[in-house]
Amino acid sequence: MPRLTKKRSKKAGLPPGTLVHIGEKKAEEVKITIMGYNDGHFEEKEIKTIQESRLSKDKSTITWVNVEGIHQVGIVEEVGNYFGLHPLVLEDILNTDQRPKIDDYDKYIYIVLKMIYFNGKCGEIVTEQISLILGSNFVISFQEGKEGDVFDPIRERIRNGKGRIRTMGADYLGYTLLDAIVDNYFIVLEKLGENIELLEEELVVDPTTQTLREIHRLKREMIFLRKAVWPLREVISSLERGESSLIKETMEMYFRDVHDHAIYVIETIETFRDMLSGMLDIYLSSINNKMNAVMKVLTIVMTIFMPLSLIAGIYGMNFKYMPELEWRWGYFMACSIMGVIGVSMVVYFRKKRWL
Amino acid sequence: MPRLTKKRSKKAGLPPGTLVHIGEKKAEEVKITIMGYNDGHFEEKEIKTIQESRLSKDKSTITWVNVEGIHQVGIVEEVGNYFGLHPLVLEDILNTDQRPKIDDYDKYIYIVLKMIYFNGKCGEIVTEQISLILGSNFVISFQEGKEGDVFDPIRERIRNGKGRIRTMGADYLGYTLLDAIVDNYFIVLEKLGENIELLEEELVVDPTTQTLREIHRLKREMIFLRKAVWPLREVISSLERGESSLIKETMEMYFRDVHDHAIYVIETIETFRDMLSGMLDIYLSSINNKMNAVMKVLTIVMTIFMPLSLIAGIYGMNFKYMPELEWRWGYFMACSIMGVIGVSMVVYFRKKRWL
Amino acid sequence: MPRLTKKRSKKAGLPPGTLVHIGEKKAEEVKITIMGYNDGHFEEKEIKTIQESRLSKDKSTITWVNVEGIHQVGIVEEVGNYFGLHPLVLEDILNTDQRPKIDDYDKYIYIVLKMIYFNGKCGEIVTEQISLILGSNFVISFQEGKEGDVFDPIRERIRNGKGRIRTMGADYLGYTLLDAIVDNYFIVLEKLGENIELLEEELVVDPTTQTLREIHRLKREMIFLRKAVWPLREVISSLERGESSLIKETMEMYFRDVHDHAIYVIETIETFRDMLSGMLDIYLSSINNKMNAVMKVLTIVMTIFMPLSLIAGIYGMNFKYMPELEWRWGYFMACSIMGVIGVSMVVYFRKKRWL
Amino acid sequence: MPRLTKKRSKKAGLPPGTLVHIGEKKAEEVKITIMGYNDGHFEEKEIKTIQESRLSKDKSTITWVNVEGIHQVGIVEEVGNYFGLHPLVLEDILNTDQRPKIDDYDKYIYIVLKMIYFNGKCGEIVTEQISLILGSNFVISFQEGKEGDVFDPIRERIRNGKGRIRTMGADYLGYTLLDAIVDNYFIVLEKLGENIELLEEELVVDPTTQTLREIHRLKREMIFLRKAVWPLREVISSLERGESSLIKETMEMYFRDVHDHAIYVIETIETFRDMLSGMLDIYLSSINNKMNAVMKVLTIVMTIFMPLSLIAGIYGMNFKYMPELEWRWGYFMACSIMGVIGVSMVVYFRKKRWL
Amino acid sequence: MPRLTKKRSKKAGLPPGTLVHIGEKKAEEVKITIMGYNDGHFEEKEIKTIQESRLSKDKSTITWVNVEGIHQVGIVEEVGNYFGLHPLVLEDILNTDQRPKIDDYDKYIYIVLKMIYFNGKCGEIVTEQISLILGSNFVISFQEGKEGDVFDPIRERIRNGKGRIRTMGADYLGYTLLDAIVDNYFIVLEKLGENIELLEEELVVDPTTQTLREIHRLKREMIFLRKAVWPLREVISSLERGESSLIKETMEMYFRDVHDHAIYVIETIETFRDMLSGMLDIYLSSINNKMNAVMKVLTIVMTIFMPLSLIAGIYGMNFKYMPELEWRWGYFMACSIMGVIGVSMVVYFRKKRWL
Repeated sequence: MPRLTKKRSKKAGLPPGTLVHIGEKKAEEVKITIMGYNDGHFEEKEIKTIQESRLSKDKSTITWVNVEGIHQVGIVEEVGNYFGLHPLVLEDILNTDQRPKIDDYDKYIYIVLKMIYFNGKCGEIVTEQISLILGSNFVISFQEGKEGDVFDPIRERIRNGKGRIRTMGADYLGYTLLDAIVDNYFIVLEKLGENIELLEEELVVDPTTQTLREIHRLKREMIFLRKAVWPLREVISSLERGESSLIKETMEMYFRDVHDHAIYVIETIETFRDMLSGMLDIYLSSINNKMNAVMKVLTIVMTIFMPLSLIAGIYGMNFKYMPELEWRWGYFMACSIMGVIGVSMVVYFRKKRWL
Repeated sequence: MPRLTKKRSKKAGLPPGTLVHIGEKKAEEVKITIMGYNDGHFEEKEIKTIQESRLSKDKSTITWVNVEGIHQVGIVEEVGNYFGLHPLVLEDILNTDQRPKIDDYDKYIYIVLKMIYFNGKCGEIVTEQISLILGSNFVISFQEGKEGDVFDPIRERIRNGKGRIRTMGADYLGYTLLDAIVDNYFIVLEKLGENIELLEEELVVDPTTQTLREIHRLKREMIFLRKAVWPLREVISSLERGESSLIKETMEMYFRDVHDHAIYVIETIETFRDMLSGMLDIYLSSINNKMNAVMKVLTIVMTIFMPLSLIAGIYGMNFKYMPELEWRWGYFMACSIMGVIGVSMVVYFRKKRWL
Repeated sequence: MPRLTKKRSKKAGLPPGTLVHIGEKKAEEVKITIMGYNDGHFEEKEIKTIQESRLSKDKSTITWVNVEGIHQVGIVEEVGNYFGLHPLVLEDILNTDQRPKIDDYDKYIYIVLKMIYFNGKCGEIVTEQISLILGSNFVISFQEGKEGDVFDPIRERIRNGKGRIRTMGADYLGYTLLDAIVDNYFIVLEKLGENIELLEEELVVDPTTQTLREIHRLKREMIFLRKAVWPLREVISSLERGESSLIKETMEMYFRDVHDHAIYVIETIETFRDMLSGMLDIYLSSINNKMNAVMKVLTIVMTIFMPLSLIAGIYGMNFKYMPELEWRWGYFMACSIMGVIGVSMVVYFRKKRWL
Repeated sequence: MPRLTKKRSKKAGLPPGTLVHIGEKKAEEVKITIMGYNDGHFEEKEIKTIQESRLSKDKSTITWVNVEGIHQVGIVEEVGNYFGLHPLVLEDILNTDQRPKIDDYDKYIYIVLKMIYFNGKCGEIVTEQISLILGSNFVISFQEGKEGDVFDPIRERIRNGKGRIRTMGADYLGYTLLDAIVDNYFIVLEKLGENIELLEEELVVDPTTQTLREIHRLKREMIFLRKAVWPLREVISSLERGESSLIKETMEMYFRDVHDHAIYVIETIETFRDMLSGMLDIYLSSINNKMNAVMKVLTIVMTIFMPLSLIAGIYGMNFKYMPELEWRWGYFMACSIMGVIGVSMVVYFRKKRWL
Repeated sequence: MPRLTKKRSKKAGLPPGTLVHIGEKKAEEVKITIMGYNDGHFEEKEIKTIQESRLSKDKSTITWVNVEGIHQVGIVEEVGNYFGLHPLVLEDILNTDQRPKIDDYDKYIYIVLKMIYFNGKCGEIVTEQISLILGSNFVISFQEGKEGDVFDPIRERIRNGKGRIRTMGADYLGYTLLDAIVDNYFIVLEKLGENIELLEEELVVDPTTQTLREIHRLKREMIFLRKAVWPLREVISSLERGESSLIKETMEMYFRDVHDHAIYVIETIETFRDMLSGMLDIYLSSINNKMNAVMKVLTIVMTIFMPLSLIAGIYGMNFKYMPELEWRWGYFMACSIMGVIGVSMVVYFRKKRWL
């Protein structure tokens, strides 16, 4: 169960810009990877401190710095200072309980968003915060955890010079990272969609308390998913409008594409919510229907047997003068009356469609 | 049951502009039909590859290229390259899980929307994605499946030169296609409206679990229908505003007309949703009412027979000294008392309006 | 029961501007009435075809053409051509399933809206579509059915020269017609309000299944009423803003007045919806309360009689050695125990407030 | 019970500007009070007709005309004509079923709003319509009923020259009247808040059907209150923006203050609605819980006594060969078995937490 | 239980700007603390009346006046007059039932907002109103109660010259106070989040009436929390836009940061509301499920025992000629039949999954 709020409170009272890591430690050790490339050139290295990096001063070279693990405040601070990031940006990078947002600091754009994937073990959705710093010729990405597979295809493309990525600027790299993250949402949505379809079938065939609990679990997931994805709309829309000089005009249609995807994701989440609400209604109706069925059985049984029992009770009375008791066919008659009453009750309930 | 999400995930990690078909293969073979016409001239041919087309360079001739079946990526790519379409457009054409949208690429306008029709066999609504490329003197339409009847009347009109279509430009042809698709929605809405009215009658006469399931099925259909139609408003509104130079000002009132229809469709869907919600409420109340009725029957039966049974039980006791047992009219008296109690109970329940 | 959707589908596939009547034929024969007036002059005539009209060319004369019955496509077309109306306007006039809207065609303004009145026989709300064409010195009104009483007082005022109507332009006449239609809504709302108040009393005194059905019927009416009235806000607001040169600036406060009325109508409908929802809640609670009461009766009866029956059953056993049976006061004692148990049960339930 | 709609229908068909009183007659006789004041001067008189007023022509003198009772159309018309009010304004003043609104007629501003107070006798909220005409150096207020206490403190302040009111213009007087009306809402809200808190306690301690009815009554009141107060936001916001030349710029902060109060009132109403909805949920859950408790008692009683009764019934059978009947301790044994079964049932239900 | 509305009504009728304290008296005595500082200088003193303060006239010195306890109207008035505050501002400061808002009075900005903390004793959320006056080189803060710990870290930072606070202007001090208040919300949210998670577990394990009451209590808290926090968005957003000349442009990113936090708080409250609604649904379903289970038990017991009792009753009849009674194995046979019926009933219910 994801904690509702992370320990943000430990920052209360500290001056703004104080660097405190909020969240879980997800990686053992911080890893910094640097990729430098342009149309003709490519290099890649893994370093321990940003000082080792010796970044090319060449304007045409695009540098991608990927930091995995943000629990070591010192390293993040070092990177931040190296690139001249504002303390408030560093504070936000370290706080993994951030709302997706975009801040334009003229010299660079700061983007926070959530990576979402399924935790194989417990079947729950896990979110990981990704911070992107998009500069004129560099991109810095901060990930909470160990190397996400999501960025791997991009690395491959850069290494092999596949596609147009090596010929484009830092804004294209930033777009590619964003696109990879949003595309990844579809995998989670598909998995959720499959779960919902399974539940729908279960609902029709044999709804149990477990089904109810599963519906509620999914509804709960939707609440969190929505919270993580909803602000994305604004973030990408702001990029699409090309308000920053860091983003070339030709990028507009690319960001429009990611924007469409983000809206699609949001609408799908809303659709899932609507469907889950509908399923809850079905579940409740089916409980009511079952209760109704149970009540009918009870009523039928009682209504048939009570009169019969009364007859048996009457002829079980010990009055001295009860003429029927002496009759030769009294017993037979009593049993016949019982039979007639029983059968006519059944017929009556059949007619009333209770049986 | 329509799958909630198509396998978009297979694109995750691929560079943007990579052409992958997402969706079901609905047609056996891709078919390309070309219609060229102007006020005086008309030709029509079916080709295998776009190279065979030999399109007229004459600016006054309007060309309509209709591609049926988009599962053969190569053919779509060929058409795209022939007309100079952006890779992102081709990517979107191939992805049948697209949200209705409009993208203005200066030289052409790209429109995606959903065709909706009833599947006769299972009574379910099926959506098919239609992509329209609207250029200065050409229109390209991409359909998923086999030749839709929806466009046939337009073909007839072009062939026969009926109406004004042969004298108008590509924007009018684009409008005509849009109009045909939106008009087709009304057929689906009418069919749904009839279903809802049938269900309403069923609800009053004899609601069964089947009724409930049908209401929920329709509610579910509405969710999907809404998702498919809602963005249309924006799409057509954008055309109506005439922001593109490809759309002549005189077209405004035509697009306003389609816009009105689209809003009408959306409002009708909302009305249907409201009505289905109301019907669900009626169903639930009627279950509760029935349960109440069943409970009353049970209570009445028990309340009448329990005291009678007790009397029978009492006179069935084997005490030695029970004066009534010896009485001459004891049995008669006991039965009379039972009768009186039973009748007065019935009278009581009548008064309380339980019977 | 009003049909959910009229047969719009019969137009699917036809070229835009094709004139087809959609809706029921409500009048036997089409009737065209013409009124021409200015400050000093007044004439009125009923004609068969618009050609007979010989309208005054005098700019200062206001002409009001009223067409009752639109099922004869030819006559509507004739009128349209005579006044130079756009084919799309004629198409919309003939389609009685139109959403209220306003279209500004420079030379004239086209307004569609819904007249609403109570059908005396079945107590249902009936809507009739009214189309208004507002020109520089003429107004054309198209009604579906036989002469509505709503316009009669206006005719009287013109005939008698009462009020300022004879001294004002066509825009004032258009306003007067609109005002008459909107004022007519209040009559329907008052009738509905009375029904709702009656239902509220019924709910408190003695709610039956009929009450429930009535609430739902009214809720359903509200859905349709809302659909018919809601777009009116926009329509009149557009007139109020005085965007068209056909509407003099001095008319602004008149249209603002109708606008206020329209908003009032919409808010009242919303209020009614809220109240009906509240009443549904009361109904459901009262069913639950009743069920609860029934259950209590059942439980009380069973809880009192089961122990007594058991005692009777025990002393009805045929064991040889049952000392109590031999006692002189055994029977009396058994009855006393039963009495004590019964009375203490009653006292217990009283204390628990179940009785 | 406030009538849902007043007899607005009696105006349908009349020309705009026709003066008809709509609403109840709340005062016996119309009373007109006139107050004239400036920094140094003050006079006050009660008149029968506006002609008697002889208003000071002096621009620096502020005149406040208060009309109590609007059912005498003639008097209102006279006042209107004296001050040159538009017929539509007079029509609106006479119609007590008006939505709060503001109309700017250049020479004066017309404001309609609702005074709200508790009717001591039936504990219901009563609304009274107040119309304010704000001119350059006069304010006219129309009230439906007998002298409201709400304006009394303002009269006192004018009489005694307390506060700044005597040194300020007509706009300040208008503001003061508005402020008095809005401040009066707080009294009603507090009374409602107390009622809600009482109900909340009742809900926890002992919810009855009366509680439910009270919740619903309050919800209903909220619907009407909201309708009366909601449009006020717009009205005052329009005054605050200072669009009219009749309102001096220095008044902005005063109107902003009333605006804040109006928003506060609206938000409090929303809060009350939310709370009442929550209380309804609690009520329904508590009914369900009670029903559950009742059902448990029934089930427990039946489950304990049915087996015991069966045993008694078995040994009450009249078979010739029933060995147990002959046993010395048979009776004792049967009773023991019954006891064991009964006790173990009780233990079982205890364990299951049903007891 | 927090009172729904404070006694605002006692102000009704008083002229605007009349100073009346509304709310509870939370502190014994009013305490005024003054801090004056600039880059190099720092002084701090506690005074009784503002006259004692002798504030530095030096423009570069920032003065922070903190007033604790506002129930003594005279002292607040004195402070207000000393700094030239508008009477309406003083009125608002004294009224603790204020909606969070920001008013720009050119020379100073007036901000009202709510401090929120947990009352340790009753576990309820308590709000305290904070008023901030932000001038060119001074900040005045009014608190209702005794020295809040929230501002203590800020005092420490000023005293020790930690962080940049001593080098920045009054706008930075204002921001710091705002930030401290908003950061404090996270503590309350975390506490609430923990409560919700505990309740969620309780719901799954063993929901009781107490759980329901707790859910409702939290929902109620959310309503009040939302009312207190929601307007904050607008307040801070107005500061962020930097419309006032009192706020330097470089402060924008700081206020944007607080703005993000405020939105985060609001979204979290919405998330909590959604979750609590979901939990209510689970609770209701679980009650229904339980009732269903109880009903099943009852039905099973009755359905098994009624037929057996009937058999016992039949052989308890006293007819003279009942052949079975004479049979050697009659008793055994009757018992066997009962056993068979009982067992087959159990098997039947097993098959129907009722057991």
